Amino acid sequence: MRIAQVAPLYESVPPKLYGGTERVVSYLTEELVRQGHDVTLFASGDSVTSARLWPGSQQALRLSGAPASAALALHLLMIERVAQQAYRFDIVHFHLDFMPFSVIRSGGFPAVTTLHGRQDIEGQFPLFREFDDMNLVSISDAQRSAMPWANWIATVNHGVPERLYCPCKPERRYLAFLGRISPEKGADRAVEIARRAGMQLHVAAKVDDADREYFETVRGKVEEPHVHFLKEIGENDKCAFLSKAAALLFPIDWPEPFGLVMIEALACGTPVIAFRGGSVEEIIEDGVTGFIVNSIEEAVQAVERIASIDRRQCRAIFEERFSARRMCDDYLRVYERVIDEAATANGPQFDQAAMA
Amino acid sequence: MRIAQVAPLYESVPPKLYGGTERVVSYLTEELVRQGHDVTLFASGDSVTSARLWPGSQQALRLSGAPASAALALHLLMIERVAQQAYRFDIVHFHLDFMPFSVIRSGGFPAVTTLHGRQDIEGQFPLFREFDDMNLVSISDAQRSAMPWANWIATVNHGVPERLYCPCKPERRYLAFLGRISPEKGADRAVEIARRAGMQLHVAAKVDDADREYFETVRGKVEEPHVHFLKEIGENDKCAFLSKAAALLFPIDWPEPFGLVMIEALACGTPVIAFRGGSVEEIIEDGVTGFIVNSIEEAVQAVERIASIDRRQCRAIFEERFSARRMCDDYLRVYERVIDEAATANGPQFDQAAMA
Repeated sequence: MRIAQVAPLYESVPPKLYGGTERVVSYLTEELVRQGHDVTLFASGDSVTSARLWPGSQQALRLSGAPASAALALHLLMIERVAQQAYRFDIVHFHLDFMPFSVIRSGGFPAVTTLHGRQDIEGQFPLFREFDDMNLVSISDAQRSAMPWANWIATVNHGVPERLYCPCKPERRYLAFLGRISPEKGADRAVEIARRAGMQLHVAAKVDDADREYFETVRGKVEEPHVHFLKEIGENDKCAFLSKAAALLFPIDWPEPFGLVMIEALACGTPVIAFRGGSVEEIIEDGVTGFIVNSIEEAVQAVERIASIDRRQCRAIFEERFSARRMCDDYLRVYERVIDEAATANGPQFDQAAMA
Repeated sequence: MRIAQVAPLYESVPPKLYGGTERVVSYLTEELVRQGHDVTLFASGDSVTSARLWPGSQQALRLSGAPASAALALHLLMIERVAQQAYRFDIVHFHLDFMPFSVIRSGGFPAVTTLHGRQDIEGQFPLFREFDDMNLVSISDAQRSAMPWANWIATVNHGVPERLYCPCKPERRYLAFLGRISPEKGADRAVEIARRAGMQLHVAAKVDDADREYFETVRGKVEEPHVHFLKEIGENDKCAFLSKAAALLFPIDWPEPFGLVMIEALACGTPVIAFRGGSVEEIIEDGVTGFIVNSIEEAVQAVERIASIDRRQCRAIFEERFSARRMCDDYLRVYERVIDEAATANGPQFDQAAMA
């Protein structure tokens, strides 16, 4: 199949450090190429891929510090270029939110849009209502809740390459927190859970400029003696960081549409103690791959029961449900459906050879 | 003529306080209606106009605090709605920068885009090069300098309604500064010029959140005893504020594409002492409507010579060159040209009545 993947330009594909969307696009792209598909990746010029790369910007925009207007211009230009070349692809897979909708409609080419963010933003609803002919893929069922009326054609959970993270010899002496230090991610809750459970907490987290103020309010907690603050870690260190943890704490305070770090933990055989909300119930099986809790109290109790979780089972369930291969297969089925429907809608196609 | 004006949604048309683009769109729209044209204004729902209003959002986005993604969605939806109704207009006049380019091209309707901002943003150039078929209007010749290769079809200087600001009995005891407190606008220079010239400085300025940090660095200057800080003033107070000033100081440190406040001062008969750059040389006639200077030293000397400027002449030149009526006439000529060219490009049109 001839496939275009169109990624945001804010981070490279894959991103150097943080950047969930670009990382998932990378996993999908590499798996599609591995399976023999002809893939063109529209992404920042410093991306690294085995697909054909079409650079939408010289480098990732977060690094180059491009002003917002330039970022918008570069994305709109990339969308225009995709449309101009659309005849060369069987399917175009956009990861740019609603930005390409108008161009998809006027171009009339087969396209799928995966929405990667939270969708409970009222100001966006009228646009999604107007473009109710767009093929939307959700990354969890929970993500749909704010817009149940939208044209969702599938849910495809994210997946991670099977050999990227593997269980290594665990120490199991600490609880892990991995992500951003932000109000939504609940680092302060993690500190409290570990303290009450009498465990060390290892925090590998970045602090965005936007979250700097919040960080100052919780800095005292992060500097408590039972907390070991590692700042942002790269892919290479993640496996050891997660594998050696007794459990990953995922004490979110927002409807996270898909918590990638949960499946990374499972890939390492590490169970997850997660606060109910967003996609958590779709990813974690309570009592099997971790515990779903509603309060700090319940989380502390879950830490005490964590030895009852079979870590090999966590890994096995990761392989079955959350590998990049499974994600890729799901998307290929979506592509085939969209291509079939586009062909039906357009009526029988002329065979150019027959007309010659 | 059936005309659509499409304004940004950040401020109402006209804006409650600051907002150059929305203010100019309002002046143009009202003058077009006054001249008998059939005008539809696409703008925020709290806009006030004698044209037909099509609300792109309930209220101005700066006030509603909509997140950036919602702001983008609402603008894209408004553009789509304009395109769907484009057959009802002889011409569509966009004030949304490059955002509607793709829709204009695929829609194929007669359209003009006035660029209101600075254009020396490299990341935008590739998009403007791709869309070299768009009809662009500059607000000064200086604005073109960063993109001389773009498809500029006219320069139309801004204009202000003739009776909005009038000379009133002047006190001429202070120098005036009106605008934002930001590094580009040079409030610190104004303080210095007034101090050295031995004059009072009255500052009517708002402080944007983005400029809060800069404001703290110059706060000491604004609080000097010869400075009177009025914060942001409304339209009603502007006339008295400008009329009673000996001169407006416009000590900019950026290539301002069009300094609306300069023509507001001239409308009040108040001469302008402006730093060379951007559109200044196109607006101020050195020695006639004020002085163009290159340094604080030269500005101080200009203050000493300010009585040599004929304030009636300032008002007369305003009426001749910078009235909303003149701006409107200029735009009507642009519209006619674009409509003619579109008709020629599309070949002879069928007369629907003749076909019946």
